[in-house]
Amino acid sequence: MYKSIDEANEAVTAKIVKSQPFLVDVVPGKTVIPELKEHVLLHAGPPIAFQDMTGPMQGSCIGAILLEKWAPDEEAARKMLEEGRITFIPCHSVNAVGPMGGITSMNMPVLVVENREHGNRAYCIMNEGIGEVLRFGAYGLEVIKRLEWMGNVLAPVLSKALKLTDGGLNLNVIAARALTMGDEFHQRNIAASAVFMKEIMPYIVKSKPSQEDLESVTKFLADTDQFFLNIAMAMCKSVMDAARSITEGTIVTAMTRNGKDFGIRVSGLGDEWFTAPVNTPQGLFFTGYSQDDANPDMGDSAITETYGVGGMAMIAAPGVTRFVGAGGFNDALSTSNEMLEICIGQNPNFPIPTWDFEGICLGIDIRKVVETGITPVINTGIAHKQAGVGQVGAGTVRAPLECFVKAVEAMAKKKGII
Amino acid sequence: MYKSIDEANEAVTAKIVKSQPFLVDVVPGKTVIPELKEHVLLHAGPPIAFQDMTGPMQGSCIGAILLEKWAPDEEAARKMLEEGRITFIPCHSVNAVGPMGGITSMNMPVLVVENREHGNRAYCIMNEGIGEVLRFGAYGLEVIKRLEWMGNVLAPVLSKALKLTDGGLNLNVIAARALTMGDEFHQRNIAASAVFMKEIMPYIVKSKPSQEDLESVTKFLADTDQFFLNIAMAMCKSVMDAARSITEGTIVTAMTRNGKDFGIRVSGLGDEWFTAPVNTPQGLFFTGYSQDDANPDMGDSAITETYGVGGMAMIAAPGVTRFVGAGGFNDALSTSNEMLEICIGQNPNFPIPTWDFEGICLGIDIRKVVETGITPVINTGIAHKQAGVGQVGAGTVRAPLECFVKAVEAMAKKKGII
Repeated sequence: MYKSIDEANEAVTAKIVKSQPFLVDVVPGKTVIPELKEHVLLHAGPPIAFQDMTGPMQGSCIGAILLEKWAPDEEAARKMLEEGRITFIPCHSVNAVGPMGGITSMNMPVLVVENREHGNRAYCIMNEGIGEVLRFGAYGLEVIKRLEWMGNVLAPVLSKALKLTDGGLNLNVIAARALTMGDEFHQRNIAASAVFMKEIMPYIVKSKPSQEDLESVTKFLADTDQFFLNIAMAMCKSVMDAARSITEGTIVTAMTRNGKDFGIRVSGLGDEWFTAPVNTPQGLFFTGYSQDDANPDMGDSAITETYGVGGMAMIAAPGVTRFVGAGGFNDALSTSNEMLEICIGQNPNFPIPTWDFEGICLGIDIRKVVETGITPVINTGIAHKQAGVGQVGAGTVRAPLECFVKAVEAMAKKKGII
Repeated sequence: MYKSIDEANEAVTAKIVKSQPFLVDVVPGKTVIPELKEHVLLHAGPPIAFQDMTGPMQGSCIGAILLEKWAPDEEAARKMLEEGRITFIPCHSVNAVGPMGGITSMNMPVLVVENREHGNRAYCIMNEGIGEVLRFGAYGLEVIKRLEWMGNVLAPVLSKALKLTDGGLNLNVIAARALTMGDEFHQRNIAASAVFMKEIMPYIVKSKPSQEDLESVTKFLADTDQFFLNIAMAMCKSVMDAARSITEGTIVTAMTRNGKDFGIRVSGLGDEWFTAPVNTPQGLFFTGYSQDDANPDMGDSAITETYGVGGMAMIAAPGVTRFVGAGGFNDALSTSNEMLEICIGQNPNFPIPTWDFEGICLGIDIRKVVETGITPVINTGIAHKQAGVGQVGAGTVRAPLECFVKAVEAMAKKKGII
C-alpha cells in the first residue's frame, strides 16, 4: 500500500499524532475483556509460564487469587499456580496493559480509555499507590483490603463521576498540561495526578457518593501521586494500538517486559513479539534496600516510552532525574537528545518547555536503533526480587538491542532482502 | 548591632530562609485588620490619593463600595470617592498585600498566613479568577455577585476545612513542590493551585459543607488556576515582614506599585518608601486588546519577586515565558541568571530543577542594583487602563532604577557617608 518504509512510518506516526484518547469509564475487567474468566490471569510482557516468572510476578498471582477467593490461603494459591490450574494471557493480547507484574483478574476494575480518532479502547488496572502493592509482588492483608476497596468503592465512584462528564476526560489536554509541569508519565505523574484530581473532583462531588465514600476516595486521590501512571498507560496503549492498524513500516508499537524477556512489536510485523533477555534496572533504592534486591525489568509500562514519554521525555521532568538516579538537568537533556536519534520525528501536540518547546519523541524506528546501537531508555519502578515485598526503588533500564536486531532481520526477510 | 552591611544582609536573608509560613484561616478582613472600618479601603502600592489612581484602581474602589453597600450605585460611589469620603491605607501598612488594585474592604475575606518562625501574620484577599474581576478594575454585577459568594460560601468553607488540618497548610511544602512543576508563583500558579486543591479537598469533604456549597467551591477551585497567587503573596509578605525585623542592611523587603509610583522598602531604612514613576508592562494581550490599552504597572504582587520568585524565577517556569511574551527556554535562563547578579545568594530550600537544582534568588541588594544597573524583572498581569474592563493581558516590567538610587543615597546619608 505504501511506496516505501518511510512512507508507511509516516502513516503510523500520523495515527499517533491524530489520536484522541478519552478516559470514559472504570469497570470490572470481566465486563470488557471477555477472556477474563475464572482461573484466568493477565500478565505483563510477552507470553510467559508461571514457572518462569520472577518472584514479584509470582507474588502478584498469589495476591490476585486471594482477592478473587479462588483459594483460601497463600499455600493453596501457590499450589493452584504450580499445578497449572491458572491460564495466563498477556495483557497486550486483550487490548490491555498492566504495570510491573501486570497481573489482572476478572473482578479487578480497569480504566477504560477510548481513542476517538480510531474508535478502539484500551484497559489498565488502577494505581494502588507505592510501597507494598500487588503490582510489585506484595499480597499481604493490607494489599488485598486496598484492592477490595478499589473495586467496591473507588471504581464505582469514578465510574459515576465519569458518566457526568461530557463523554469522558480528554487525556491529551491533561497530558499536555502535565508535560509543562515536569511529568514524564512513567516515574513522575505528580502533576498529571493533581490535574486529574482537579478535573474529576467536581464530577465526583456532583454524583453525590456517600459521605464515607467521598472522604475515602478524595483522600486516596490526594495521596496517590502516581495515580495517573495507569491512565497514561491505557492512553498510550489506545494510541499505539490505533497506530498498529497501519500494518507496514518499522515503527515500534509496543515495548514490554515480563521479568525474563523484553519484547517489542513492530508496525509491519504483525502480532509477533521480538524478545531478548531483560536487563535489570539501575537506580536509587528506598532505605534498607540495594541493587542486590532488584528484580529484573518488568511491566507493560514501557508503553509510555513507546509513545514517546517516560525515559524518552526525561528532559520534560528534570525533577525525576534525581529520583531515578539519572543525574541533573544536563543529563536529562542528553538523554532526550539521544532518544531523538532513534525516532522518526517529534509530536507537535506535546511541546516540552524545558526542551525549548520541542515536541516529544515520535516513532521509534527499529532501523535507527540497530544502525546507531542506541536503545530506548526506560524510567521504571524497581520491585524486590522476592515475592511479597513490593517496590524497593526506582531507576532506569535500557531495552536490549537484540530485540531490535531480530525485528530488523524479520523485516529484511519479509521484504525478501535476506 | 552588625559589624558590616554584609553581615546585616546575611541576618536578613537568614530570616527568609528559616521562615515557616502556614495558611491557617480565611476570615473577614475586619476581624484581623483593625484599621478596616466603614469607609476605609486598602490599596496596593505606596500611598496614593483617589485622584491620582489610574482607571482600574478607581474601578476597583467603586466595586468595593458597591459590595459593601456604602453607596447604592456607581454614580453615588464615584461621588463618595471624589468628595474624599473614603479613607485610603496601603495594604502594606497593615500586614497585608493586594493584587493589582489591591482594593480591600472590611467584609472581604482575607487569607491568613502565619510565619511560625517569627510569629507574625500576613493577609491577602482571595483570587477571583481571570478576566472581568475586581482587582483589574471591573465592577459589573457578575463581579460583585462572585465577591459576595466568596464571602458567604468560599471563605467559610475554606475556614472550616483549615481548622481540621493540623495547624494549617505548610506553604513551604506546597511551594517547593510547585516550583518543580513549572510555577513561578506570579503569572503561573497552575501547579500550586492544583496541589493546594489536592491538599485541601480531603478537609473540605470532611467538614461536610452543604451539597450546594461543596459543588460550587469544588468547581471554583478546579477552575481557578491562579488561586494560589494570593496565597503566595500572603506567604511572601509574611516572610519579608519577618525579615524586616532585622532593621539593618541593604536588602529589599518590599516592592510594590500603585499604577503611578513604584515603591521599595529596604531592611535598614525602616518604613520609608523609595519611589519613582512606574513603567508600563510589555507583553501579550487577550484578543481585541493591545499595548495601547495597557495600564501602568500596579499591585502588591511584586512581593513575590522580592522573595525571589515571579520574574526572578523565570527559569523555573519556561511554560510562562511564552504567556508573558518573554521568549523561550534560553531567555528564561538568561533572565534568572541576570537576576542572580543583584542578589546576595540563593535559597537552598527551593531548588529549581530546570536551573540544575540551583536555589531561587535570595535577597535583592540595592547596592548591587545600582552598581550593575540591573533592575528586578516582574512578571505581571496587565489591566485595561479604563475602569470597568478588567485584565487584558500579561507581561513583564522592570522596576525603575531611580527607587534603588534614592535608597542607596538614603543609606549613605544614614551611615554618614554623604
